[in-house]
Amino acid sequence: MQTVAIAGVGLIGGSFARALRQAGFTGKILGVSSPNTVKLALEYGVIDEATPEQEAFARADLIYLARPVSSILETLDAIDAVVRPGALVTDAGSTKVDIVRRAAKAVRNAVFLGGHPMAGKETRGVSSADPDLFRGRTYFLTPQPFSQMQLPSVMRFREWIQRIGANPVPISPEEHDRLVAFTSHLPQLASTALAAALAGSLDPSQARMGAGPGLLDTTRLALSSYDIWADILQTNQPLVAQALDLYIDKIQEIRASLGEPSARQYFEIAEKFTKLLRKRSV
Amino acid sequence: MQTVAIAGVGLIGGSFARALRQAGFTGKILGVSSPNTVKLALEYGVIDEATPEQEAFARADLIYLARPVSSILETLDAIDAVVRPGALVTDAGSTKVDIVRRAAKAVRNAVFLGGHPMAGKETRGVSSADPDLFRGRTYFLTPQPFSQMQLPSVMRFREWIQRIGANPVPISPEEHDRLVAFTSHLPQLASTALAAALAGSLDPSQARMGAGPGLLDTTRLALSSYDIWADILQTNQPLVAQALDLYIDKIQEIRASLGEPSARQYFEIAEKFTKLLRKRSV
Repeated sequence: MQTVAIAGVGLIGGSFARALRQAGFTGKILGVSSPNTVKLALEYGVIDEATPEQEAFARADLIYLARPVSSILETLDAIDAVVRPGALVTDAGSTKVDIVRRAAKAVRNAVFLGGHPMAGKETRGVSSADPDLFRGRTYFLTPQPFSQMQLPSVMRFREWIQRIGANPVPISPEEHDRLVAFTSHLPQLASTALAAALAGSLDPSQARMGAGPGLLDTTRLALSSYDIWADILQTNQPLVAQALDLYIDKIQEIRASLGEPSARQYFEIAEKFTKLLRKRSV
Repeated sequence: MQTVAIAGVGLIGGSFARALRQAGFTGKILGVSSPNTVKLALEYGVIDEATPEQEAFARADLIYLARPVSSILETLDAIDAVVRPGALVTDAGSTKVDIVRRAAKAVRNAVFLGGHPMAGKETRGVSSADPDLFRGRTYFLTPQPFSQMQLPSVMRFREWIQRIGANPVPISPEEHDRLVAFTSHLPQLASTALAAALAGSLDPSQARMGAGPGLLDTTRLALSSYDIWADILQTNQPLVAQALDLYIDKIQEIRASLGEPSARQYFEIAEKFTKLLRKRSV
């Protein structure tokens, strides 16, 4: 791996570039982003060159698409005409079924491997890029077919994922999208709905007085921008709706149990699950 | 203020004792708790003496009730017979209407001032006691009548609250209970319901793989024990039910907007509110 093109040098793309460098990557990192972003990325030393998209895709042996999902889908349609034969194209999009399906149709000259690092923070942009963002996190890979994992370029990429401290986990696109509907999309909407419900019921200065650490934790995701979430919700809508329905059912059950001894079971199930969730992931 | 009795030397009671000491309190701190707890509290130097309840209440000029709400209510019924005339009795219970009403009936010989520090963490017990737990946090006081705030003992207590780094905020018991239904009880149940919904839908090891930092934030409150929450939910049930209904409505609205341009408004309202919430409280 000599030349890496990062398309979308934001939080994820910029962090991946910095993580690669920290892990000992000595090749070139080309950045493809808006003029303002590549200027900042060059200033911060996140990328080596600001390169026009077609040129970057023609030169790189690893192309890392860290754009919003809809923009990844568009890029996949265009990339085949310019990509270097045998290059590895991967992405960091938050849903995988649509992306993998599109790539199967559109990408012939390169190898496409879907990816999704379970990392992030509420701040955006290259100025938040962090070489340790992926450390200790799952990095989902959605090989299609599964035997892709044995390709030399895929094996090399997987090794880099380990070097940046993440845990590569192969999974089917369908399983991925179902899983993140619960572990990522549902918590996001639960947090957004909580903040929106509070916004409709309390004056912000009053809410601030009444805010303990728990409210700050539960609303942190509500700082996320819709610009990223629009595509995620669009491309995983049925599963997100299903997760929301199960969540609403659970809240209704708890509401019905208020003041009854049966309320205890929800706390106990939740506590047990939450402890298991933290067993290795913190 | 020469002698303070802490009834319930757990996270809150123990932290208040350590905070007082750190802020320069040189009098005696008497601890009233279970044998195991007072043993630990003495070992950690959180309290000066393990004292039987009646003796502690008879000796103290400040009595700090940091027990579960139902236990505070029972203590209020018994305290008047033993308390030192003119002593200040205060509590750290998470709901205030029932406690203040009970104290108005039961406490005659002492001054009762309801209190509620908006501080906490997911770990319990005196071993988690932290002298900085209250730093930067709101400390609600529910004087009844409001002119209580001018009593010398109340003014001295308020000064100690400031010395431990907290922000004393007088509020009526009714306003308090409505406010915390939204800022504390609703986030708790949203988090518990989220973890319980996930527990019903995913295998824990699978969930752990799919967990990003956002899921850990939104489920942190789900680690709370029902032993504390039973009383809180019991004594604030109608307002908690109302807050849950508004939350369910908001989730339903967001669910209906998935994939529509109207989804953006919820994210924008939530983001704006969440930023305002953090303006001074972090």
